[in-house]
Amino acid sequence: MRSVDLNCDCGEGFGAYAMGDDAAMLDIVTSANVACGFHGGDPEIMAATFAAAKAKGVAIGAHPGFPDLWGFGRRKLPFTTGEIERLVAYQIGAALALAAYAGHRLSYVKAHGALSNIAMVDESVALAIARAVKSVDPRLGFLAVSGTKLEAAGAAEGLAVAREIYADRAYTDDGLLLDRSFPGAVLHDPAEVAERVLAMVEAGAVISVSGKRAPLGVDSICVHGDSPNAVAMAKAVRLRLEAAGVALAPFAWG
Amino acid sequence: MRSVDLNCDCGEGFGAYAMGDDAAMLDIVTSANVACGFHGGDPEIMAATFAAAKAKGVAIGAHPGFPDLWGFGRRKLPFTTGEIERLVAYQIGAALALAAYAGHRLSYVKAHGALSNIAMVDESVALAIARAVKSVDPRLGFLAVSGTKLEAAGAAEGLAVAREIYADRAYTDDGLLLDRSFPGAVLHDPAEVAERVLAMVEAGAVISVSGKRAPLGVDSICVHGDSPNAVAMAKAVRLRLEAAGVALAPFAWG
Amino acid sequence: MRSVDLNCDCGEGFGAYAMGDDAAMLDIVTSANVACGFHGGDPEIMAATFAAAKAKGVAIGAHPGFPDLWGFGRRKLPFTTGEIERLVAYQIGAALALAAYAGHRLSYVKAHGALSNIAMVDESVALAIARAVKSVDPRLGFLAVSGTKLEAAGAAEGLAVAREIYADRAYTDDGLLLDRSFPGAVLHDPAEVAERVLAMVEAGAVISVSGKRAPLGVDSICVHGDSPNAVAMAKAVRLRLEAAGVALAPFAWG
Amino acid sequence: MRSVDLNCDCGEGFGAYAMGDDAAMLDIVTSANVACGFHGGDPEIMAATFAAAKAKGVAIGAHPGFPDLWGFGRRKLPFTTGEIERLVAYQIGAALALAAYAGHRLSYVKAHGALSNIAMVDESVALAIARAVKSVDPRLGFLAVSGTKLEAAGAAEGLAVAREIYADRAYTDDGLLLDRSFPGAVLHDPAEVAERVLAMVEAGAVISVSGKRAPLGVDSICVHGDSPNAVAMAKAVRLRLEAAGVALAPFAWG
Repeated sequence: MRSVDLNCDCGEGFGAYAMGDDAAMLDIVTSANVACGFHGGDPEIMAATFAAAKAKGVAIGAHPGFPDLWGFGRRKLPFTTGEIERLVAYQIGAALALAAYAGHRLSYVKAHGALSNIAMVDESVALAIARAVKSVDPRLGFLAVSGTKLEAAGAAEGLAVAREIYADRAYTDDGLLLDRSFPGAVLHDPAEVAERVLAMVEAGAVISVSGKRAPLGVDSICVHGDSPNAVAMAKAVRLRLEAAGVALAPFAWG
Repeated sequence: MRSVDLNCDCGEGFGAYAMGDDAAMLDIVTSANVACGFHGGDPEIMAATFAAAKAKGVAIGAHPGFPDLWGFGRRKLPFTTGEIERLVAYQIGAALALAAYAGHRLSYVKAHGALSNIAMVDESVALAIARAVKSVDPRLGFLAVSGTKLEAAGAAEGLAVAREIYADRAYTDDGLLLDRSFPGAVLHDPAEVAERVLAMVEAGAVISVSGKRAPLGVDSICVHGDSPNAVAMAKAVRLRLEAAGVALAPFAWG
Repeated sequence: MRSVDLNCDCGEGFGAYAMGDDAAMLDIVTSANVACGFHGGDPEIMAATFAAAKAKGVAIGAHPGFPDLWGFGRRKLPFTTGEIERLVAYQIGAALALAAYAGHRLSYVKAHGALSNIAMVDESVALAIARAVKSVDPRLGFLAVSGTKLEAAGAAEGLAVAREIYADRAYTDDGLLLDRSFPGAVLHDPAEVAERVLAMVEAGAVISVSGKRAPLGVDSICVHGDSPNAVAMAKAVRLRLEAAGVALAPFAWG
Repeated sequence: MRSVDLNCDCGEGFGAYAMGDDAAMLDIVTSANVACGFHGGDPEIMAATFAAAKAKGVAIGAHPGFPDLWGFGRRKLPFTTGEIERLVAYQIGAALALAAYAGHRLSYVKAHGALSNIAMVDESVALAIARAVKSVDPRLGFLAVSGTKLEAAGAAEGLAVAREIYADRAYTDDGLLLDRSFPGAVLHDPAEVAERVLAMVEAGAVISVSGKRAPLGVDSICVHGDSPNAVAMAKAVRLRLEAAGVALAPFAWG
């Protein structure tokens, strides 16, 4: 029986500020990428999110971002690769500690926002993130956007890598994300998204807007947690996969 | 041969801001309490300080404080004990990660500034800090001001505890720090400080302003790193102890 | 014809984080207390909120709080009165500048959260806030909780003072806010709140839980903007007042 | 008698962190560019610096930078021009308020670090800064690096502009700053710096490394406040100018 992981960002509030409906999303996904206090999240939210994930059997990952709460980690900040190694290592450590505090175990690391966007195309940044993971704990997994420099960097550093696709984004024939400026680049209809995800999971490959298969691995489906219809879309994806006999389970990091 | 640990706060700068002369202090002390980014310190400074300590054979501890860079962790902030557990755990994790990144190993935890000052007299806060340490890694040591609630809390939680005295502070007959408002509460003459420290180390007890011995353990001497004559005073203490045949070595956390 | 001001906190989001439904509230209230970047708000949100208020004919005030984004300004931080003067002055200046930038004019200042709560009962803190206002621009008005040290401090410093009551809070016979720990301290039913507000406005006095009149001025009604039924309650208050022939208009600061 | 302004950055510490020797520099310069809390500075330091400048007859300017305390405003952050307008306006307002609080009057604005470096060559950013000044108070002066987009932007927006040169930087024949990667780009000898500054002031023009005159205005000399020999160099410049009969006085903004 085919199995796939379903991941989303969680714990991205800050103090009195909420971001997304974590409680609802943790009932749907199998892996939660938890913000580490730099672009969002704080020690209170991290501990509570880890505890909630533990209670619901959801695997957890550290979700480090740029130190940019104002920009929610979406600004491309000009840090050097050395600085990136260290600010990522810092956040992974914080997540490891609060996961232990909450009685859960951190399974993997996934970069956030602009840090991830840069790393998808910049090998040196991708390697910096992978080195940070390895230096802190080489047994941690590496959740990487399928077919990008991140996937290659995780493998190059000897980390266990899971390859994710975005549920609501269209892909080019080359397996790249279609730029958001193109019509249809972001999908909004839950049913359409769910069908497309199922097709990719069954194909074991990314399927482009023109219907071509790009030979990119599909170990995990990323659903967004902070859009208006996030919960509805994530539910639709999960239900469609289950109805087709695909098991939803955290990635087996080994 | 008698041996004692000599500790000071290190890595308390932030970005372009310096605090104290870390390079000079790391040539003198045997243990460095390294700020974790909340009251001072940042990932760059943490990694560099851990690497420098490793190169010089200096043991390292995490030095968590309140999230108060503006107040340098000296403001008594009204956090709950639960919040303190989690913000301390967060900082310990960050320190563990950057120590690993820098190729060193974190030995212990010592609370900073107002957090420590509160915990010295408030059992619930002292226990919160000790629980945070235990939850993250029970093998970490606990560097506590001798004779305070911190010492008791570390023991109560089953942590290895080292008891420190302040090199430049006068003590009451009860073994408490003489309030800074009293004349003579803070000693400024390096030679006088060095003699007094030696007397306490040889006595294995705190010696008060009236000359009485308070039965408080002396496992480590805390010298300040950020006062104008910090380096001179630390050097004087070290040289006097060595001249008297006292070995300077990191505490054996076991 | 009787007239009263209706105020609420606005612009308290931060970057990607929202707080309350500002657009809806600005259609209802006559004065907006706009966060200044310390407990919430940022330059983007401030400018946008001032511009929206201008477009809707809503008067604007600076809403300074403690520098505590994590705690949303609700933690009672141990700043000295001198520090409070300066951190309030800083925020007022920022608000004046962005109001000018947005083409609006700042009318008044109202303290936020823990800063206001402390000042309501601590004369020295209340005076510090009033002095800060006076030092920056003595023509600015001072929106103060009716019957508190804030009201007295504004008057003592020669500022134009408007006295506000809380729409959804019960009052004691002495005109104090009933502590939130008592049942009925916070009212939740919009219709009940609206009737009670109307009664107070018509009486020109605070009416206690036992029905007694406390001789406290009622120049402005404070409705909350961040509770789940904030918009419904504010609308109910406004409609009830209008139905009874009470005009809703910004306070005439003179 | 020829007269020139001598300016330096001041008030760039943060909380317990010092940056440069403000007290010494305020005895030497005629204008102080005071940090506004984003890249350095805080309300305490701002008020104290303004008061000290007032006591010493030193003119004051707001010195806004990117919101980047960690990077001391030296990182080139990817803000839009609109965002720059608003974050600069915010800082100018804060400075105006604390200047009034301290009994001084803000005369001008000068951009800091990476914000200034970008604006020197990017017209849109330079105009954004000038627009921010104009929107807050069009009577404020604009201290701009001579011959750059900043100078042009200030003039285009109708602001009073003073043109500054750097005391310790070498210039190309085109009047541009020689890139720091070239040998001799930064001058370190106080006597040499002082002679060169005098020559430029007497010529009323920038003099390049090859000895050519670039027709750039010299209304103010910028001396650094945070380098190791900052005080010695500033003193040397002042004494050399005075010895040659050049008066040192704040720029007459009109």
